[in-house]
Amino acid sequence: MDKLIFGVDLGGTTVKLGAFDESGALLRKWEIPTRTENRGEHLLSDIARAINGEAEARGAQILGIGFGVPGTVRGGDFVQTCVNLGGWGGLHAGTALGELCGCKLTAVLNDANAAALGEQWRGGGDGAENMVFVTLGTGVGGGVIVNGQLLVGVHGCGGEIGHIKLTPTGEDVCGCGKSGCLEKYASATALVAQTKRRLENDPSPSVLRAGGELNARAVFDAAKNGDALAEALCRDYADALGRGLAGVACVCDPEVFVLGGGVARAGEYLLSLVREAYVRYAYAETVSTRFALAELGNDAGIYGCAREIMRKLNKI
Amino acid sequence: MDKLIFGVDLGGTTVKLGAFDESGALLRKWEIPTRTENRGEHLLSDIARAINGEAEARGAQILGIGFGVPGTVRGGDFVQTCVNLGGWGGLHAGTALGELCGCKLTAVLNDANAAALGEQWRGGGDGAENMVFVTLGTGVGGGVIVNGQLLVGVHGCGGEIGHIKLTPTGEDVCGCGKSGCLEKYASATALVAQTKRRLENDPSPSVLRAGGELNARAVFDAAKNGDALAEALCRDYADALGRGLAGVACVCDPEVFVLGGGVARAGEYLLSLVREAYVRYAYAETVSTRFALAELGNDAGIYGCAREIMRKLNKI
Repeated sequence: MDKLIFGVDLGGTTVKLGAFDESGALLRKWEIPTRTENRGEHLLSDIARAINGEAEARGAQILGIGFGVPGTVRGGDFVQTCVNLGGWGGLHAGTALGELCGCKLTAVLNDANAAALGEQWRGGGDGAENMVFVTLGTGVGGGVIVNGQLLVGVHGCGGEIGHIKLTPTGEDVCGCGKSGCLEKYASATALVAQTKRRLENDPSPSVLRAGGELNARAVFDAAKNGDALAEALCRDYADALGRGLAGVACVCDPEVFVLGGGVARAGEYLLSLVREAYVRYAYAETVSTRFALAELGNDAGIYGCAREIMRKLNKI
Repeated sequence: MDKLIFGVDLGGTTVKLGAFDESGALLRKWEIPTRTENRGEHLLSDIARAINGEAEARGAQILGIGFGVPGTVRGGDFVQTCVNLGGWGGLHAGTALGELCGCKLTAVLNDANAAALGEQWRGGGDGAENMVFVTLGTGVGGGVIVNGQLLVGVHGCGGEIGHIKLTPTGEDVCGCGKSGCLEKYASATALVAQTKRRLENDPSPSVLRAGGELNARAVFDAAKNGDALAEALCRDYADALGRGLAGVACVCDPEVFVLGGGVARAGEYLLSLVREAYVRYAYAETVSTRFALAELGNDAGIYGCAREIMRKLNKI
């Protein structure tokens, strides 16, 4: 009988699923809709049906299920209320999902942490046992891996680097209720806000005034094409991120920072700006820390969830 | 035959030694001078003589030696050049000391990390498996413990929290060659520098103008006695430290911060100011993280070195 490991990445609109064999090879990946109505009452049964269906179709046994969720996780099982899932949470999600699938081995992870593990295993981290993953999207998230293990933290907040306070106060209030957070300087959202502010207050010419959709990609594209105002914005962006990551290195001193999320599509241009800023602020012994781009995109979560199960089975 | 574990804390003027029994009880502690001449050529033989003499006097076998040094350590054995020891370093210090003592089990640790382990085991950390130790003295040092293990980092810089950049640039250049470091806001030295600057620029009355020796203790004592200018200085000091530690919690999310070093003699008054500042900047889920005072003083290092050996022997 074949044996399967499942990686499940629960997002706000879709649930991504991956079926892996015992060696960690991805056999199939697919998505189902995330039904958040009535505090997500159908969420777990939808996921269980998808998993059980796949296992039955293959006549396979379910070895384990890794489950990534967009919220804080305690003890690798309990999920606190997830604001982006209509208030779903407040339950031992791993235990509950395992019961629905007749599988005792489950592991619940924060989604950013799951993505960090995925990138470490099969992506930009290239197997580095000490790595920090940084997602640069609507917010700034992260995952810290020390000696091959996630640094989850006592309250599940290990790697919540978006809320490091770069300044005592800042112009924009963060989703966390405070201001001065790295996220308000280094997210895609923050770059757009800074760009709008700059366009209002700085009369210098810029292609960004042409009136197309203003997003992080447009700002980075303009900078790459030599637009001086966009370049200055990207440098400020990288300066904040570089300073934040230099501070992270003073705590956990990783071998490599892997940058993912929408902003990381700016590629090598982003990396070189961030590396330059990082070196400006890094403690001398850590200036040589590498920077790499994430490689798995939206699949990072399912890979990371599967990796967690592989570890628990001592297969890696 | 009795069995002994030795903890050795190598400082700039003295070497502190502790002989522990197999259960981790301290049997004797003593000091020898640190001879730094000729790049510390006698350092290891002096230490070995002290250890071997103690073991012989007790007719005991040496089970293991933990060795704390004031510099960067790689791989738990190799010590890079120590600027405060006349250039001693650049050697596999654990292996070398072990050979001189006929003992194969050695572990070399950075001194701040050793102190962190000591406080975790027998001091203010009270056994917490996830803890950050902060030394507030001439500089700001630290040690991060995750799941009972030191977070050493790839370059040995885990816990170098004194060099987190609180600001992009700052008034005072740090020993590390950059500015804006937490150490330039939260060390005893920094508090004195800020006090001098404030006394020059702020005409308000203060007992600190009386002309006694100006040190961190004097500033905290004046603040405790209601001196408004000193209080403002202590609040600024705590604000910087609280913001830095709130950032540290976003990386490793410990159960408790243990504050040691000279400034920590300000006791509960310091703790309450730092806790207040920390709460101002901490990510919501980490606001409840505890703060405690270090308890072992100068003995923290020898305890931490012994603990590392105890762990390796699976005795704790």
